[in-house]
Amino acid sequence: VTSSTPDIPNALIRYRSIVESGLKVALNNDSSSSYLMMRYYMGWSDVFGGHTEAMTGKYIRPSLCLLAAESTGTDLASALPTSLSLELIHNFSLIHDDIQDRDEVRHNRKTLWVQWGIPKALMAGNLMYVLANQLTDLNFSDSKYNGIAKLLSDACLKMIEGQYLDLSFEGKFDLTVPQYLDMVSRKTGALLTCSVVSGLELGNCTTTQKSHLTRAASSLGYAFQIRDDILGTWGDQSSIGKPVGSDIRRRKNALPIVHLMNHTTLDARETVLKVMGLDSIDDDGVHLILEQMESVKTYEFCQGLAEEFCSTAIDEIEAANLPERFQIDFIEVINFVTKRIH
Amino acid sequence: VTSSTPDIPNALIRYRSIVESGLKVALNNDSSSSYLMMRYYMGWSDVFGGHTEAMTGKYIRPSLCLLAAESTGTDLASALPTSLSLELIHNFSLIHDDIQDRDEVRHNRKTLWVQWGIPKALMAGNLMYVLANQLTDLNFSDSKYNGIAKLLSDACLKMIEGQYLDLSFEGKFDLTVPQYLDMVSRKTGALLTCSVVSGLELGNCTTTQKSHLTRAASSLGYAFQIRDDILGTWGDQSSIGKPVGSDIRRRKNALPIVHLMNHTTLDARETVLKVMGLDSIDDDGVHLILEQMESVKTYEFCQGLAEEFCSTAIDEIEAANLPERFQIDFIEVINFVTKRIH
Repeated sequence: VTSSTPDIPNALIRYRSIVESGLKVALNNDSSSSYLMMRYYMGWSDVFGGHTEAMTGKYIRPSLCLLAAESTGTDLASALPTSLSLELIHNFSLIHDDIQDRDEVRHNRKTLWVQWGIPKALMAGNLMYVLANQLTDLNFSDSKYNGIAKLLSDACLKMIEGQYLDLSFEGKFDLTVPQYLDMVSRKTGALLTCSVVSGLELGNCTTTQKSHLTRAASSLGYAFQIRDDILGTWGDQSSIGKPVGSDIRRRKNALPIVHLMNHTTLDARETVLKVMGLDSIDDDGVHLILEQMESVKTYEFCQGLAEEFCSTAIDEIEAANLPERFQIDFIEVINFVTKRIH
Repeated sequence: VTSSTPDIPNALIRYRSIVESGLKVALNNDSSSSYLMMRYYMGWSDVFGGHTEAMTGKYIRPSLCLLAAESTGTDLASALPTSLSLELIHNFSLIHDDIQDRDEVRHNRKTLWVQWGIPKALMAGNLMYVLANQLTDLNFSDSKYNGIAKLLSDACLKMIEGQYLDLSFEGKFDLTVPQYLDMVSRKTGALLTCSVVSGLELGNCTTTQKSHLTRAASSLGYAFQIRDDILGTWGDQSSIGKPVGSDIRRRKNALPIVHLMNHTTLDARETVLKVMGLDSIDDDGVHLILEQMESVKTYEFCQGLAEEFCSTAIDEIEAANLPERFQIDFIEVINFVTKRIH
């Protein structure tokens, strides 16, 4: 992966402190050590509750929500609870993902189930999701918020169905690219799209703007996951990100393997399946698969597709006719997602 | 456990079909096999999706909600979505509980994680909870439903905190009875109380009625869990329920062990701790502990406490001044919960 690090988009910088403060309030409860687990996961605390400067998330979902809100005339304060809810839902899904995939490390730290065991990690994830729901319940008495809880629960439903689909495909390696994209549109796309759409809910955007922005978010979702899969296959240049071949070792149905299996010879497919069927896939196995990918130009296909989605997303943003500074913000986020190195 | 089987309360019989039909509609989706998993868990389907006559739940929570609604002048149809939501939340928690406790059998059938693996079972539980949320979102545009989603998410928060507390106590056996009761009021009491309170939300009950019914539900929660713990320790007479000593074998902080540890000699406590610390607790270990319990009359204490909560619950129901037939319904449910044999 040879693209150079893109700068952090202005919008992510601008919303970072308001989002992080809000999240810290939502998770500021010392009645139960389950809150400590959540704060640890967010990167704010060590395992004993002490202050730490660990890596945190990039808060892409809440930032998209706030950006969508601001760019269509909604003040940040009104959209903040929804934006926080989106970040909590995202982390709820990551905590459970770590359990499912047996991932032991995230952001260079032990995952919750490794540190505290599966039962408590499972509960911490559930608690995070309930807290997300409570944030959307905050403004119940105000009828303009009526649709937001439904938007978020619909997105969760799709997200979980997508994760379930992903699990169902495990060990199969016979997906087509369209099947992969359908799975991704739910697993990753639903919550990202909801981030933008829920941010529009309180403002006064036109129907046309709304459909352009929805389509932009949906394309961004594909670009996001494909970029993730690229990093998961070819790694990144930084020391903090993913090593080469991690998705291959974990036998994930990522786009590179889907592409390879659909574009290689029958013989090569057999070889790949043999490697994927091994109890443990070593460096030789990884390199064998990477070589096969090179011969059918899998990297070029994947990065090309990510860039196509990226460019569609940008076209849609431009068509939405937003005030220029917000248009620039959106485009920066889209470019960042498609070119990020972790 | 020698009490005779109480008759199924009229209210549970009366609401059964409306609740079950409603739940079947909510889980009637064939786009993903995750819905099959949920239908299997509810006892309606075999592992392949075929019809089965397996044991189902008793639908106590939705019945309490519908009974509370009907007895304070709300029609069943208005309260139905909330009541279904409560049953889904209950089953969401059971699915995850099975994973946490490594329980392999429930209602005489394999649990989801045994049948489909932990990752898919985890997702099926999450999906069930999202569907529960969606039911409470159904009537958003009607402002009288505004408070209900918040009531349910508050109850979930307490429930999960209670489950977490329960996990934190694991292997300790130094709880006091008040600590146990606090844990139970959250783990079990929160959702049962919410079942009644949410059923009152749409009706016209007075503040006095509401506080009596809330206290009744809260007492019922204690009685319910204590009865569960009694069945989990001394088993039941039926072949379908719990065998003798199952909570002891699983080292659960159930009331009997809490009582024993607080009322026995120092020497006996050491002996109990030694048994509880064994890799696997055999029949001899179970009988040793049951003998200790007999010597300090643990069974009498537990059943006595359950009956005390039962009688408080009945007093509160009587004080609520409901139409007589509903009063009788409530009292039947309370008696059933406290004397049930599975």
